[in-house]
Amino acid sequence: MPKNSRKTKVLQHPTQVATKQNPVAVQEKKTVTNSWLEVPDEATLPPQVQALFQEQRDRYGFVHSFFLGYSLNPEHLLLWFNYYNALMYGKGELSPKEREIIAIVSSAANHCESCVITHKAHLREVIKDPVFPDALARNHQEVELTQRELALVEFAIKINQNANELSPEDLKPLRQVGLSDRAILEAGEIAAQFSLSNRLTKAFGWKVSSEYDKLYR
Amino acid sequence: MPKNSRKTKVLQHPTQVATKQNPVAVQEKKTVTNSWLEVPDEATLPPQVQALFQEQRDRYGFVHSFFLGYSLNPEHLLLWFNYYNALMYGKGELSPKEREIIAIVSSAANHCESCVITHKAHLREVIKDPVFPDALARNHQEVELTQRELALVEFAIKINQNANELSPEDLKPLRQVGLSDRAILEAGEIAAQFSLSNRLTKAFGWKVSSEYDKLYR
Repeated sequence: MPKNSRKTKVLQHPTQVATKQNPVAVQEKKTVTNSWLEVPDEATLPPQVQALFQEQRDRYGFVHSFFLGYSLNPEHLLLWFNYYNALMYGKGELSPKEREIIAIVSSAANHCESCVITHKAHLREVIKDPVFPDALARNHQEVELTQRELALVEFAIKINQNANELSPEDLKPLRQVGLSDRAILEAGEIAAQFSLSNRLTKAFGWKVSSEYDKLYR
Repeated sequence: MPKNSRKTKVLQHPTQVATKQNPVAVQEKKTVTNSWLEVPDEATLPPQVQALFQEQRDRYGFVHSFFLGYSLNPEHLLLWFNYYNALMYGKGELSPKEREIIAIVSSAANHCESCVITHKAHLREVIKDPVFPDALARNHQEVELTQRELALVEFAIKINQNANELSPEDLKPLRQVGLSDRAILEAGEIAAQFSLSNRLTKAFGWKVSSEYDKLYR
């Protein structure tokens, strides 16, 4: 998901100006509004949602389909975003790289290609490496991970795929690499959050714009 | 999960008073603190979390293990709860009964026995029927559901079990029973939220007190 409250360069927004002279812009705007549900007219949305959209336009050049789709229930979108934003960008023991790694392997475990594309872009931005995120998404065993990263990856996959079989034994590898209980909870929260957002994405067709895959390469 | 902001009778809290004369109360209090992670001293928690705990004590006689366990990250607990509370008890098109039905069948699909026990109690409270929730949790095909409830149940199970295979076709049965796109989104949100909270419960052993299964019978 796009992130909030950071200063970045303003990217050109290709779909913002729609005039009679430029009908293509309108068509392009429709194309990126991927949702199998109604999408409300942006002008009718609460100011906080409009501000969130504008921040994404300034940052990426477009609004992420997850946010466009979820704006059908704008109050819930904002409450979800407050939680998500704290998990991914708020204070915590896990590094930005570790959080994005969990986001990618969780989304891959849930076969949410759109979410994988989104968080590969965010990881590229964090680590300034265009190769590692693609390789991680294909197979985490192919990439070089620290012991701590590997423990987080394996835990995130377990939570998404086999939560029903988890036991206190599954926390041991995390403690063995020095993670505190608070850090372990953070990892579980992020992994479980993607179990939610991946499902909404898949249930309602909130497929990300292909532009996302070009960011930060 | 326990609900918020409703007036109810104050139940007796069996573990609140722990004195030298009553060591059993202390032991009982420890027993209900189910978590495989550290659980912080309640006195160190932010006032909003302490107030949430007290509200549950007043209402149920104890604090739900999910909240005790999640209080290791109290800021995230509150942000999650704001979202959860809006989904389950805020304004919306789905009835309280429909929301609890989705909670139960989602939790059952995820094999989260503890979450099933919790939401059977909440559904009993809503519909004043001690039999229907148990039967629904065992097998939704055994109970009498409206066409609308059945469509919601089948959609909730799909989101939790087979989100990866969902297509626009899966929204048709929901529209056929008259649900608006906004109501369909609400259903998806609730189902997907349980994909998150069920996983945290299973990952960290936040097993509900057996007292919950006795509420509202």
